[in-house]
Amino acid sequence: MAEASAEVAIIMGSQSDWPTMRHAAETLEALGISHDARIISAHRTPDRLVAFAKGAKAEGFKVIIAGAGGAAHLPGMTASMTPLPVFGVPVQSKALSGQDSLLSIVQMPAGIPVGTLAIGRSGAVNAALLAASVLALSDPTLAERLDAWRAKQSAAIAERPSDEA
Amino acid sequence: MAEASAEVAIIMGSQSDWPTMRHAAETLEALGISHDARIISAHRTPDRLVAFAKGAKAEGFKVIIAGAGGAAHLPGMTASMTPLPVFGVPVQSKALSGQDSLLSIVQMPAGIPVGTLAIGRSGAVNAALLAASVLALSDPTLAERLDAWRAKQSAAIAERPSDEA
Amino acid sequence: MAEASAEVAIIMGSQSDWPTMRHAAETLEALGISHDARIISAHRTPDRLVAFAKGAKAEGFKVIIAGAGGAAHLPGMTASMTPLPVFGVPVQSKALSGQDSLLSIVQMPAGIPVGTLAIGRSGAVNAALLAASVLALSDPTLAERLDAWRAKQSAAIAERPSDEA
Amino acid sequence: MAEASAEVAIIMGSQSDWPTMRHAAETLEALGISHDARIISAHRTPDRLVAFAKGAKAEGFKVIIAGAGGAAHLPGMTASMTPLPVFGVPVQSKALSGQDSLLSIVQMPAGIPVGTLAIGRSGAVNAALLAASVLALSDPTLAERLDAWRAKQSAAIAERPSDEA
Amino acid sequence: MAEASAEVAIIMGSQSDWPTMRHAAETLEALGISHDARIISAHRTPDRLVAFAKGAKAEGFKVIIAGAGGAAHLPGMTASMTPLPVFGVPVQSKALSGQDSLLSIVQMPAGIPVGTLAIGRSGAVNAALLAASVLALSDPTLAERLDAWRAKQSAAIAERPSDEA
Amino acid sequence: MAEASAEVAIIMGSQSDWPTMRHAAETLEALGISHDARIISAHRTPDRLVAFAKGAKAEGFKVIIAGAGGAAHLPGMTASMTPLPVFGVPVQSKALSGQDSLLSIVQMPAGIPVGTLAIGRSGAVNAALLAASVLALSDPTLAERLDAWRAKQSAAIAERPSDEA
Amino acid sequence: MAEASAEVAIIMGSQSDWPTMRHAAETLEALGISHDARIISAHRTPDRLVAFAKGAKAEGFKVIIAGAGGAAHLPGMTASMTPLPVFGVPVQSKALSGQDSLLSIVQMPAGIPVGTLAIGRSGAVNAALLAASVLALSDPTLAERLDAWRAKQSAAIAERPSDEA
Amino acid sequence: MAEASAEVAIIMGSQSDWPTMRHAAETLEALGISHDARIISAHRTPDRLVAFAKGAKAEGFKVIIAGAGGAAHLPGMTASMTPLPVFGVPVQSKALSGQDSLLSIVQMPAGIPVGTLAIGRSGAVNAALLAASVLALSDPTLAERLDAWRAKQSAAIAERPSDEA
Repeated sequence: MAEASAEVAIIMGSQSDWPTMRHAAETLEALGISHDARIISAHRTPDRLVAFAKGAKAEGFKVIIAGAGGAAHLPGMTASMTPLPVFGVPVQSKALSGQDSLLSIVQMPAGIPVGTLAIGRSGAVNAALLAASVLALSDPTLAERLDAWRAKQSAAIAERPSDEA
Repeated sequence: MAEASAEVAIIMGSQSDWPTMRHAAETLEALGISHDARIISAHRTPDRLVAFAKGAKAEGFKVIIAGAGGAAHLPGMTASMTPLPVFGVPVQSKALSGQDSLLSIVQMPAGIPVGTLAIGRSGAVNAALLAASVLALSDPTLAERLDAWRAKQSAAIAERPSDEA
Repeated sequence: MAEASAEVAIIMGSQSDWPTMRHAAETLEALGISHDARIISAHRTPDRLVAFAKGAKAEGFKVIIAGAGGAAHLPGMTASMTPLPVFGVPVQSKALSGQDSLLSIVQMPAGIPVGTLAIGRSGAVNAALLAASVLALSDPTLAERLDAWRAKQSAAIAERPSDEA
Repeated sequence: MAEASAEVAIIMGSQSDWPTMRHAAETLEALGISHDARIISAHRTPDRLVAFAKGAKAEGFKVIIAGAGGAAHLPGMTASMTPLPVFGVPVQSKALSGQDSLLSIVQMPAGIPVGTLAIGRSGAVNAALLAASVLALSDPTLAERLDAWRAKQSAAIAERPSDEA
Repeated sequence: MAEASAEVAIIMGSQSDWPTMRHAAETLEALGISHDARIISAHRTPDRLVAFAKGAKAEGFKVIIAGAGGAAHLPGMTASMTPLPVFGVPVQSKALSGQDSLLSIVQMPAGIPVGTLAIGRSGAVNAALLAASVLALSDPTLAERLDAWRAKQSAAIAERPSDEA
Repeated sequence: MAEASAEVAIIMGSQSDWPTMRHAAETLEALGISHDARIISAHRTPDRLVAFAKGAKAEGFKVIIAGAGGAAHLPGMTASMTPLPVFGVPVQSKALSGQDSLLSIVQMPAGIPVGTLAIGRSGAVNAALLAASVLALSDPTLAERLDAWRAKQSAAIAERPSDEA
Repeated sequence: MAEASAEVAIIMGSQSDWPTMRHAAETLEALGISHDARIISAHRTPDRLVAFAKGAKAEGFKVIIAGAGGAAHLPGMTASMTPLPVFGVPVQSKALSGQDSLLSIVQMPAGIPVGTLAIGRSGAVNAALLAASVLALSDPTLAERLDAWRAKQSAAIAERPSDEA
Repeated sequence: MAEASAEVAIIMGSQSDWPTMRHAAETLEALGISHDARIISAHRTPDRLVAFAKGAKAEGFKVIIAGAGGAAHLPGMTASMTPLPVFGVPVQSKALSGQDSLLSIVQMPAGIPVGTLAIGRSGAVNAALLAASVLALSDPTLAERLDAWRAKQSAAIAERPSDEA
């Protein structure tokens, strides 16, 4: 994980979100994008949330990835206090399998957007890829790395299914 | 509506929630409970939210009723910054009829509770009644008024359905 | 668990709800709030329900926490027969994961409120915390204990996720 | 509507359920089955509920049809206090279109059954037909009337769709 | 299980429904009600379905309990070809946990009723109890056995939850 | 509409399904495919259903389009009694907007397939197009008409949105 | 699995769909229908998708079976580029159990149909059976094999449930 | 609307999406961001889709906003063929109110991200704001305009609800 002047902040509501959100960190890692992962509970550490969100741009972050589950307020509340793009990852919840997380993140009112990804691990990977595509707009070498990553991904898809797989 | 030292604060995310939330105000009115209704958007006025929630107890409020729709973060975020009991009213949303509002409000993580009422008008009325039952614990005359209100409600139920009704 | 003059009653529809509802009891315990846990099935022991609900205030209870699953009628029916505040905990059901429990509890008609918490363990913990916030309105030392409990909770959130956790 | 010794009781939570439940009454009417329609709110008139349910068999009723919406507790609570068969009609609710009514009625725990019909008007008609099929078990002339009603219904289905219909 | 002139038929769509539907059989057993359990697949043995449904009354059955999962057509199609009361049990399906089974059974159009019970085991037990309440209308000794069964059930509910349970 | 030896049968549960299903008829019309539309209620005219389904192949039909709403058993039951391909159209229902129709049609058990289309008008149009694609496999001139229809459809999509549209 | 001139193409979005889709292959196998199974990811190999869909008819395929999960675009996108009938199988997804897969496949707009089967294994088997019924329209010996397969299936349904099964 | 070298492309599946998507255009307009709105149906104009998506970066676009309803494949398929960030807007559908649109857009598999906004008008406005926040990362004057827009939005929220509003 990276320090102070990382490009992407990965924040999450609790330690229990890390098994999901680490896939965002690993994907950024693979693409050579600096990042910093922190636990910020919208509900249990609201002061930490306010301090982080208001200071995120000044800290040098360019994109924020926020993961949370259940009544997931972290992505939306962060977005309310920063001009940076915020991408939300609905963490799969126990009783409702992330349907609550998804609706709590995606159904933001007009005025404060959160770009929401899929529930769970796929969403965490994709939040990182979306952050990469944003950063690549002004970073041609990252754009090349992202193109290569995607080409490699396509090439890795076998032509036919295998019973051994 | 009441002033400074009202017992109940009714807050809502936008003017468009008022046709729902006014039923909370009217019910408190009927029970003789002082209240103050304000618009506080968790997303569009986060500073107002922080100031209100942190200061609500000092302002003299005893109970907070918070209504919001869609990705409804107002009740939960308020609860994260006040020790007062917070009752949430899911406002009926356009596309998802309040299912998003309900899940965003009720599915709070362990540690920060929001007592959630029904979607829409019924929930607003009931938030006021629940606030009344809380305040009545230390206000015997309110307890009597509440008992009377409930007795009247019961007595008003006709014995048989009417085709004219 | 406490006797006769406990402040909070924890009632539940069956023994099978106890693994969920014990979290309410433990949280009240941690906050030093007296409580009494009982099994009352709205459907299988309706007389017990009526006797309890009608007598709860006279027994000295101030707040009632009611947990139930499926077609969960216990919280609402209790609320219909007592002026005390009732907080409902939707227990996670087998087929529908508590969606039936949640709707059966929260969608009360105008006139009889149930303050509903999240499905499952989080909801049970939070019902206790909400009861505490209500009781703290007229109990300054409890208010201090609750503040301390919340401060401790906030302080326990690590700054960064850990792979070992 | 019928008197004292009617065979079927039609009960409903409020006057607003009557536009739905009247279809049960009209269907019983058409089949020549005596019935009595009453408003009994599980939540707002719990004493009326207890008195009715405990006395229904002694009053001479053989089948109970109960309609309610939202957190619909009337059918299940009635079933908990009578040995008579209870058929439940989920009334279409405003926000959730009767999904809450349906789950609140049908998801009864083992031990206390409610035979649940479709949401809304169809369910009300069918509750009456189901009651008729039960009563017809020991009433051969009713059985004949029911057979005739069903034969007429089948015969009324046109062979081909009509643009004028 | 019983023969030819049993009072209750228990039918189900496949052998895989038996672990659910056996609870209906066992409950009838406990109440001393004769019954006959058969596999009838609406889709894979439609002729068997037609023969059974059209002949059920002549065979001497008085009530039919039908369990099925997924696109569960067995209860409704049986009801379309018999004047006997049909009670449907939605068997819990793999992907959708019985939500498909429930809606396929309960949402019958006006004209052909199916009294629907809860998803899974509870529904199977309750279908038997509902059948018992119907048969008890003209069988006073069964009525007594059912009353005793219910009284025993109520008496078996412990007063307080147990950590050992 | 067409006669005896039509290629496609359009069946529906009631006259009220016609406003939806007529779009299937009109689409077949536009493609020059003979068809015959009939009302067959699985529940209210089960004999008509059996006669039709068992005789459909002998009547000369090649594809069956079946539309129904609510507990929609018509497509699946037809499929159980014919070797012809059956395509199902979930008609939008009142309370549940066709979610019940969709699940009742699509969730068929292994062994008896129904190819299911979208809820409502789109599904009716598409059932006709799918039937056309099936018939076109052995009818080159129909294949050409279908290709032309699709090409025309593509060409009709404007390049840019219009405020006047 | 078969080569070049197979009658049915089975395509799927990823290797992880094979445990579901192999049931389609096995069913075609059992019916003696040639087929070819391929992995084509709409999202990760869009060029492969375009090439396949546009060339499928020329390759000699008559029917396409497409399975995918989550935001399942493979069936619909394939249908948009081929005049052949496309049958879609919603693969059960992790968080939402295939509800997302089902809606992404079945809710196609008017103009491009996908005949959709049940979620998971049943849907895969049935896609094969539906393909068989289509091919049998112009292949009398396949029609006989399909009739025999269905007769055998019906005969295999036991009359009564077994505790040993 | 803008020309050739616009920064943001707004694409939608049909003319009927324009009443929703025009809110994205108007918001970009208000922020002084060049944009170009086009109709591209993933299903009815797949060639147009491929040409657009593959050429979007070369055309000079930096961000793509894609709106679609029902089985909404446009955002995901576009994302599969461009390295640019794609933001998806679920258009409210008729039967399912946009639940199908939402799941079809947001539940993308790992590898190809779509940043999804709320269903309907709010989502369209927010897609524009999210695009603005992305473009503002390398455009300080846009960043200022966006800050001003947000400040104005916050300032426009009244302190108290109004009965006249």
